[in-house]
Amino acid sequence: MRGTQVKMFHPTLQEESLKLANYVCGEWKHGSGEEHILIDPVTGDQLAIVSSAGIDAVAALDYARRNGTFALQQLTYAQRAELLARIADVLSANRADYFEISRKNLGATEGDASFDVDGAIYTLKLYARLGKPLEGRIIQDGAAIPLSKTGVFQGQHFLKPLSGAAVFINAFNFPAWGLWEKAAPALLSGVAVVAKPATPTAWLTQRMVEDVVKANIVPNGALSILCGSARDLLNHVTQDDVISFTGSASTAKAIRTSPNVVSRSVRMNVEADSLNAAILGPDAAGTQPFDLLVKEVVRELTIKAGQKCTAIRRILVPRQNVQAVGEAIAGRLASVKVGNPRNAEVKCGPLVNKAQQSSALAGLSQLQREARIVYGGDRDFQPIDADRNVSCFFQPTLLLCEKPLQSRAVNEVEVFGPVATILPYDSVDEAIDLAKRGAGSLVASVFSDDGEFKGKVTLGIASSHGRIMVVDSAVDGNHTGHGNVVPTCLHGGPGRAGGGEELGGVRALHLYHRRFVVQGGPKLIAELGKEAVDAKAL
Amino acid sequence: MRGTQVKMFHPTLQEESLKLANYVCGEWKHGSGEEHILIDPVTGDQLAIVSSAGIDAVAALDYARRNGTFALQQLTYAQRAELLARIADVLSANRADYFEISRKNLGATEGDASFDVDGAIYTLKLYARLGKPLEGRIIQDGAAIPLSKTGVFQGQHFLKPLSGAAVFINAFNFPAWGLWEKAAPALLSGVAVVAKPATPTAWLTQRMVEDVVKANIVPNGALSILCGSARDLLNHVTQDDVISFTGSASTAKAIRTSPNVVSRSVRMNVEADSLNAAILGPDAAGTQPFDLLVKEVVRELTIKAGQKCTAIRRILVPRQNVQAVGEAIAGRLASVKVGNPRNAEVKCGPLVNKAQQSSALAGLSQLQREARIVYGGDRDFQPIDADRNVSCFFQPTLLLCEKPLQSRAVNEVEVFGPVATILPYDSVDEAIDLAKRGAGSLVASVFSDDGEFKGKVTLGIASSHGRIMVVDSAVDGNHTGHGNVVPTCLHGGPGRAGGGEELGGVRALHLYHRRFVVQGGPKLIAELGKEAVDAKAL
Repeated sequence: MRGTQVKMFHPTLQEESLKLANYVCGEWKHGSGEEHILIDPVTGDQLAIVSSAGIDAVAALDYARRNGTFALQQLTYAQRAELLARIADVLSANRADYFEISRKNLGATEGDASFDVDGAIYTLKLYARLGKPLEGRIIQDGAAIPLSKTGVFQGQHFLKPLSGAAVFINAFNFPAWGLWEKAAPALLSGVAVVAKPATPTAWLTQRMVEDVVKANIVPNGALSILCGSARDLLNHVTQDDVISFTGSASTAKAIRTSPNVVSRSVRMNVEADSLNAAILGPDAAGTQPFDLLVKEVVRELTIKAGQKCTAIRRILVPRQNVQAVGEAIAGRLASVKVGNPRNAEVKCGPLVNKAQQSSALAGLSQLQREARIVYGGDRDFQPIDADRNVSCFFQPTLLLCEKPLQSRAVNEVEVFGPVATILPYDSVDEAIDLAKRGAGSLVASVFSDDGEFKGKVTLGIASSHGRIMVVDSAVDGNHTGHGNVVPTCLHGGPGRAGGGEELGGVRALHLYHRRFVVQGGPKLIAELGKEAVDAKAL
Repeated sequence: MRGTQVKMFHPTLQEESLKLANYVCGEWKHGSGEEHILIDPVTGDQLAIVSSAGIDAVAALDYARRNGTFALQQLTYAQRAELLARIADVLSANRADYFEISRKNLGATEGDASFDVDGAIYTLKLYARLGKPLEGRIIQDGAAIPLSKTGVFQGQHFLKPLSGAAVFINAFNFPAWGLWEKAAPALLSGVAVVAKPATPTAWLTQRMVEDVVKANIVPNGALSILCGSARDLLNHVTQDDVISFTGSASTAKAIRTSPNVVSRSVRMNVEADSLNAAILGPDAAGTQPFDLLVKEVVRELTIKAGQKCTAIRRILVPRQNVQAVGEAIAGRLASVKVGNPRNAEVKCGPLVNKAQQSSALAGLSQLQREARIVYGGDRDFQPIDADRNVSCFFQPTLLLCEKPLQSRAVNEVEVFGPVATILPYDSVDEAIDLAKRGAGSLVASVFSDDGEFKGKVTLGIASSHGRIMVVDSAVDGNHTGHGNVVPTCLHGGPGRAGGGEELGGVRALHLYHRRFVVQGGPKLIAELGKEAVDAKAL
């Protein structure tokens, strides 16, 4: 079955609203009560209705733990890796549908949809590959530790998968990748997933879960989804579970301080706001790194209309290059077509809804108190093939803040849309200082051929950034992108960025495991070791 | 100088009170305002006065970061390891003084003082040894990751020491070890320490810090101490700092939910309550493991008068062995002399103060609703060589709860004193279930010669315990102890135990480092790698 979608799916979708079911306790269940409506941010059409009202969170979590996690942990890592490969296959087979849903519910261009959907599939495939050699059920952590002179008593650390569920509270901007970049390491670890996608874009997530459930790949209970409000879900998580949250700092705060989470020391990973910087070297005028920075800024502003937690928000530029950088970026932005993604020429779609549009406009106003507009910023801007009254577009906008060290908003306010600000710097130390004023960021990029500058900046900003991308003429166009989260590399950052860690290859398994040490005789330790695999770089 | 202690130190100590100075911003400073009095829990004598009132926390943290952390990070791990070795030497040289302070301020027996003081020195020496081969300033984390076909663009993860300060909010029971088990990995990581010991026993901590400062071992700002209330300290920590807390669940909650800590995602490690279990195997009647368990329970009840977060609180016993275990433990407890540690025959001292005594008595009452007393529990109990009206003793007490699966308090109330409860079990699964009802513990121990039982219980309780000690006839007396925290092994536990991780050899450095990934050309990565060391099993 496909929830209740069968009856109302194509071709009536445009006219009628779907009601998306929740999948909990191995059953598709409709919420009854409060409903949320999903819209098309280009046309304003109502696309679907979701509701989590009346869904029993206690039962849902309990089912996930007792059935999903239990069954997954009967398998080895290698066997679970095989499940990931099969999930990737199912998603690949339905890729066209996902692009269609992305276009409707997110106003996604082909590139935007690919970033999300293909990113999800790529990540699943990576974890399938990483898990393949891991023939065991726990992970050995380091060597045996001598604890007695004769060797009759030793210590051995292991990592054991959590016995609970992995609860994902996800962001609206990545309904596909946002689920699977977390679910891949969770399922590989043997921990059942309970996903609560962001309501405005829950459709794609729900549909993917449905396809995977329908394909009968994972054990019963290994994958659940709640669409709509999280309601009392977090009141019922325990120390055996883990919460992984991506979204706003304010929601992160509410979850972090919720009494149940606090009193049970529930493990939690957070990815929140981030004012990521791209930094141009002092040597860069007229060089390849200059062009590479300009190109990357424009890409980051336009892809997904700047709705990426890793997008460039601040462009740190030697003061003498401010005008040249501004003109180059503005020149490229002027040629970017913004509008209805159904028009093949369009390269930048809308924001996800009116609320986000209002929020971005309010943020822009805050920035404008400290920065002037170099390009864009037209509140009456006319998108291509769309009614600007019903749609949620935002003109790509570049600002310049002349005195960034005396300013606050440019370093603190994340406008979640196609908005970035040029911040001039007068010395290398000032560039480092400015980058760090993000108070913890997911990523920074450095564009320069100056070896000393690259090294100094990288180490100077390392402790406040999870990822630092350094591009020079030798790297040229071969870099993976400032805002592109490669699953083999760490994704996360301190402070404002939430303090979390995701991905980074097998390192991601840590979140879903508990370390313990056994102190005992060598025979017992050897016995336990039979179930264990050695996962390098974990 | 020795704060203001010089004037008032020996031999007037018994008559006059010391006022202990705080050490911040490279200076000894007295608080002015609210004062706390430290007492002798045997005699009730006032020993010293502390006050943190008027101390500028902002300046203290800033000084620690800018001077202490900065200077430490100019050194390599190996050079900092050398500092730890010198600290250990200074502490060893003053060991007799520390035993004296321990006896006065904690009522510590020789064994209790050794557990704390020698444990601290041993831990420092271990980290000195672990750091010795680490000739570098950052840690390489895993191998280079290919990110482009031609190899011009790669990824490399590193761990970099935090740029802030390590703030320790510590518990009263380990004024020596509690500081140094945290400070050793922090200083080895290059992170300055700001210690806030628990007020009732701050004297020993303050004295050790003073001795180390006086010996001029660590850079200015690398070691600070605040005695008394933490006041607004936590309002000024940032994302560059780390908080490590050991103490009650209620204080942990207050710190975790404090607005500044939440909004900045300040990293935090917590060790809180724990209802640790010792588990006797079904085969154990009349065997060596039976005797080893009995001996260990008595040791855990009496050392430091049971005031150890790792102490045995629950004794899980096959139902048919309940009487035998109860009699054996009671028999041994009857011969333990409880009283003034100045009497050489005394093996069990007092609780730390009247507040702890009242709290333990209240806890005992809670347990008595579900359990009956097998030994002890005399509220009018007469300690040796002490006035029971002014002293803070608590009679070692053993209880039996016949229906532990139908009870709550025995699995939830941690009486922080010489109190443990026997819980009968009827099957291996029941034993596992009971152990897990601690809802996350620091440690459990298993005493059995039954290989299947040992393996099943170990894996069955692993995800809710940080450490599992398994003792059989082959291990015999060579084990390191249920409650003894060996620095090469993990110390921490999920849920009620706080969800933290400490020690575990070099793993402890993690808390004081931030992981980041550099994506760039091989030359840059090689350049950064010159500063990096490979720390195995981190």
